[in-house]
Amino acid sequence: MMLTTNERLAQQMAFIIEMDRLKNVLRRSPLADGSRRENTAEHSWHLAIMAMTLAEYANEPIDAAKAVRIVLVHDIVEIGAGDTFAYDAVGYEDKAEREQQAADELFGLLPEDQAAEFRSLWEEFEEGSTPEARFANAVDRLAPLMLNYLNGGQIYRGNGVSIEQIQQRMAPVAKGAAELDTVVEAMLTDMQSRGIIRSAAEMRE
Amino acid sequence: MMLTTNERLAQQMAFIIEMDRLKNVLRRSPLADGSRRENTAEHSWHLAIMAMTLAEYANEPIDAAKAVRIVLVHDIVEIGAGDTFAYDAVGYEDKAEREQQAADELFGLLPEDQAAEFRSLWEEFEEGSTPEARFANAVDRLAPLMLNYLNGGQIYRGNGVSIEQIQQRMAPVAKGAAELDTVVEAMLTDMQSRGIIRSAAEMRE
Repeated sequence: MMLTTNERLAQQMAFIIEMDRLKNVLRRSPLADGSRRENTAEHSWHLAIMAMTLAEYANEPIDAAKAVRIVLVHDIVEIGAGDTFAYDAVGYEDKAEREQQAADELFGLLPEDQAAEFRSLWEEFEEGSTPEARFANAVDRLAPLMLNYLNGGQIYRGNGVSIEQIQQRMAPVAKGAAELDTVVEAMLTDMQSRGIIRSAAEMRE
Repeated sequence: MMLTTNERLAQQMAFIIEMDRLKNVLRRSPLADGSRRENTAEHSWHLAIMAMTLAEYANEPIDAAKAVRIVLVHDIVEIGAGDTFAYDAVGYEDKAEREQQAADELFGLLPEDQAAEFRSLWEEFEEGSTPEARFANAVDRLAPLMLNYLNGGQIYRGNGVSIEQIQQRMAPVAKGAAELDTVVEAMLTDMQSRGIIRSAAEMRE
């Protein structure tokens, strides 16, 4: 059934309808209360709230509204490509290829001008090529650490992830928003003192 | 455990952590595929994508970035007050009071300047006092109709909702973005022709 004779609006509605599928893409991290895994749509909303709230901590001056737009679209390619677990080396091998294909399909639903605009926000995020993208990357890394810290870090225990691996994964936080990295360090220190995470050396013992 | 000695950042983190609970507030509408009910966090993300995509259809010129900020925060009071079903007259009786109390608590977590800023976005939405708020209201009404249209309209059948009730509920769409109201009408006409929804008169027969 055709919903409108306005061809441009029909394309936009097709894109918006397709976006509903992001609610069914599951991430590895459970919610703060540990009750279930987070999906990518609600994760993207949470990042947008974080970007609105924490923009003042960006290392470089940023356009907060643009950072919000970036986080809102940064993961929509997961509709086609799925979420890749941060500590999954094999999944990362073909991640870029899967995501490029998904980007062609998804952004291609939009009218040309908007396809270019949305795709460019996504590419900016992937490349970390602007202050807004680097800040967006910082909150994108902080968010799952925060949830896993709050839910007791099951995901780190279950997957044998070392402190060094988490620190490496969190490097973009300091790069985009140094003050927020103090929160990262506080969470790691606390989890280590409670025996939730261990250093690589401790894990080899 | 204290995550930072920066008091302002500590307040902001407390707010952000509290926001995670919006992922557990369930709305009545199922997703487009009918697999489960939508939660308010992912709904808010979807509205933000809609606002970015459809801003050109606002009846009055709008600042799209502001419309995005409005939809991102418009429902966070549901963390304290819960979602009120659109066609639940009893629930609506104390909705305003429950939401004011939740707003005090939630926005109160933020530093004063941000509490005022976020609360003002929410109030603007509630009052429909600006072009951005009226446009935000339009997409907020269109979104659940779209999902229920796609999932076969179980929610309308199960709750004995008439076409006239839906049209009344959808009035803000024409008010904020007249072109989008043509999509509303197309969905209603199609659902009526397939016997999914009926007029009040037909329901009395």
